[in-house]
Amino acid sequence: MKVCIVGASGHGSFVFRAMEQDPSIKVVGVAPGSEGEDASKMAKMAEKQGQSAKLYDDYREMLDQEKPDVVAVNCFFGDHGKVNLEVLQRRIHLFAEKPLATELEELELLEKEYKAANVELAAMLGLRYLPAFYTAWHAVQDGAIGQVRLLTAQKSYRLGTRPDFFKDRKTYGGTIPWVGSHAIDWIYWFAGEEFVSVAAQHSAMYNNGLGDLEMSALCQFRFSNEVMGSANIDYLRPAKAPTHGDDRVRVAGTKGVIEVMDGKVTLINDQSEGIQELALLDAPAFFAEFAKQVRGEGKCLVSAKDSFEVTKACLLAREAADKQEIVYF
Amino acid sequence: MKVCIVGASGHGSFVFRAMEQDPSIKVVGVAPGSEGEDASKMAKMAEKQGQSAKLYDDYREMLDQEKPDVVAVNCFFGDHGKVNLEVLQRRIHLFAEKPLATELEELELLEKEYKAANVELAAMLGLRYLPAFYTAWHAVQDGAIGQVRLLTAQKSYRLGTRPDFFKDRKTYGGTIPWVGSHAIDWIYWFAGEEFVSVAAQHSAMYNNGLGDLEMSALCQFRFSNEVMGSANIDYLRPAKAPTHGDDRVRVAGTKGVIEVMDGKVTLINDQSEGIQELALLDAPAFFAEFAKQVRGEGKCLVSAKDSFEVTKACLLAREAADKQEIVYF
Repeated sequence: MKVCIVGASGHGSFVFRAMEQDPSIKVVGVAPGSEGEDASKMAKMAEKQGQSAKLYDDYREMLDQEKPDVVAVNCFFGDHGKVNLEVLQRRIHLFAEKPLATELEELELLEKEYKAANVELAAMLGLRYLPAFYTAWHAVQDGAIGQVRLLTAQKSYRLGTRPDFFKDRKTYGGTIPWVGSHAIDWIYWFAGEEFVSVAAQHSAMYNNGLGDLEMSALCQFRFSNEVMGSANIDYLRPAKAPTHGDDRVRVAGTKGVIEVMDGKVTLINDQSEGIQELALLDAPAFFAEFAKQVRGEGKCLVSAKDSFEVTKACLLAREAADKQEIVYF
Repeated sequence: MKVCIVGASGHGSFVFRAMEQDPSIKVVGVAPGSEGEDASKMAKMAEKQGQSAKLYDDYREMLDQEKPDVVAVNCFFGDHGKVNLEVLQRRIHLFAEKPLATELEELELLEKEYKAANVELAAMLGLRYLPAFYTAWHAVQDGAIGQVRLLTAQKSYRLGTRPDFFKDRKTYGGTIPWVGSHAIDWIYWFAGEEFVSVAAQHSAMYNNGLGDLEMSALCQFRFSNEVMGSANIDYLRPAKAPTHGDDRVRVAGTKGVIEVMDGKVTLINDQSEGIQELALLDAPAFFAEFAKQVRGEGKCLVSAKDSFEVTKACLLAREAADKQEIVYF
């Protein structure tokens, strides 16, 4: 399976992490996707895997020359939409950093092109494959908490140092679409309902000179069947915290409450006394699952519909926060 | 200090829990505040403390006869406003179950009367005195997390069996004002900012035949200085959970994150490595602190302003959820 990687600003490394599970994956070309982006990091990663990926200056030239089976896109976030469109226009399977686009108009264009292209597409909502989230979601599918009613999710990161393109809404897209997308995705994925509306807030105060970058955000979603979910998002995790991120989800249902925190899954329901800690399932490598899907051998956990819906939810939440209005889907 | 108690449907027991700390507190009279309410439970509590409280049928008669220093009101929640008004009209100090009223018009009347009355008033937002919350709040005041930016709070209760008056919005008031008031109060108290607006949701689905009672709710508040806070509220805690409630607050600031969960306080900041668990402070008895305030010897943690603001926040959040609109303060 021939793979090209555009950009080196997101989680292109998903491709490399799948190689042990699927040795047929070959990275044949690497190119920047944004002006000023250095893609050599990805070429080095390929080298470490014993592969020689050609480093191109122009990703369009790379796509036309290499004719890959799959392209992984992870350039500056504000360029996702443009690059993704080029990939779909060439009818190549697309594994794309989230959000798929940072403007709604671009997202609509992309969705139209996707429908015409007859290819596979997944956004890098790869935290679904973290063992704790993967385990909790399967428990919910198995009925551990009954009907899902109320969800809360958290993304809290250390600020650390951030590349310059994080400072500008045009290149960064915003903290809700970048960091928040995962929390929004968990809520949507666990809810198993359709989005109805969103109210949100964000603030760039105290951002240590990082321009437009929002340090904190809240998104409140309404879903079908009066299911509701809230995401709290911040870059306020102290530098001395024991881990980079503090990812959480709590799902309360009619028959129990399940929760992911500190990489563990806890469940309370009326099947047993007290709080149970669930044994973690082995999660497969995300990109290996996507590669299978491309070969028609199954489906990865992130459908194209999910990829578009979650991106749309991020952009509408950002709009809700900008305008201080409830925005409907 | 002569105290009368109206009703037996809330947390009138705060009065008895203060007697060890302040033996001058005497409960002299007890009466129902709502039609069909049985107040004898409060008389029995007084008896257990070696006090003989007279049981009245009519609380107005009790107030006029006993001329107490303080009245504690805890009748059916829909009657709080009416009874509180009777107390304030008699210029008696008021220790009142939250919410102070269940309709905004009543609350406005009450606030006018309070301003005219020159008495002390506190709503029973007594969870501020739970050792973990008390300790965390003091740490925030001492600068442990810098400027507060993002708050989340949780109230999750077992549903259990509920009295009939919980089934009707008119007598119950709603889950946001009843259960949610504590979470909203923590957010407000820790934020140290003024309310700006609220977006909210609630759902009465799957309420086990309990009429209007909402099983789940979300409230998202905007405060001054772009501080933001979210409360998630539910009755979805399973019967076999180890405790009745799962109360939490998380406060993220510019220099750290502090959190209350499972009755413990954890702090991460850059003053020390890793996660610290704070030693819990001894919290005084809430009503003993209020009794001191009545004697002019200090201030309890819940000011009259806080009591009115938090009640207003609850009622505006309920309105936001009913109408699916952002409501401004």
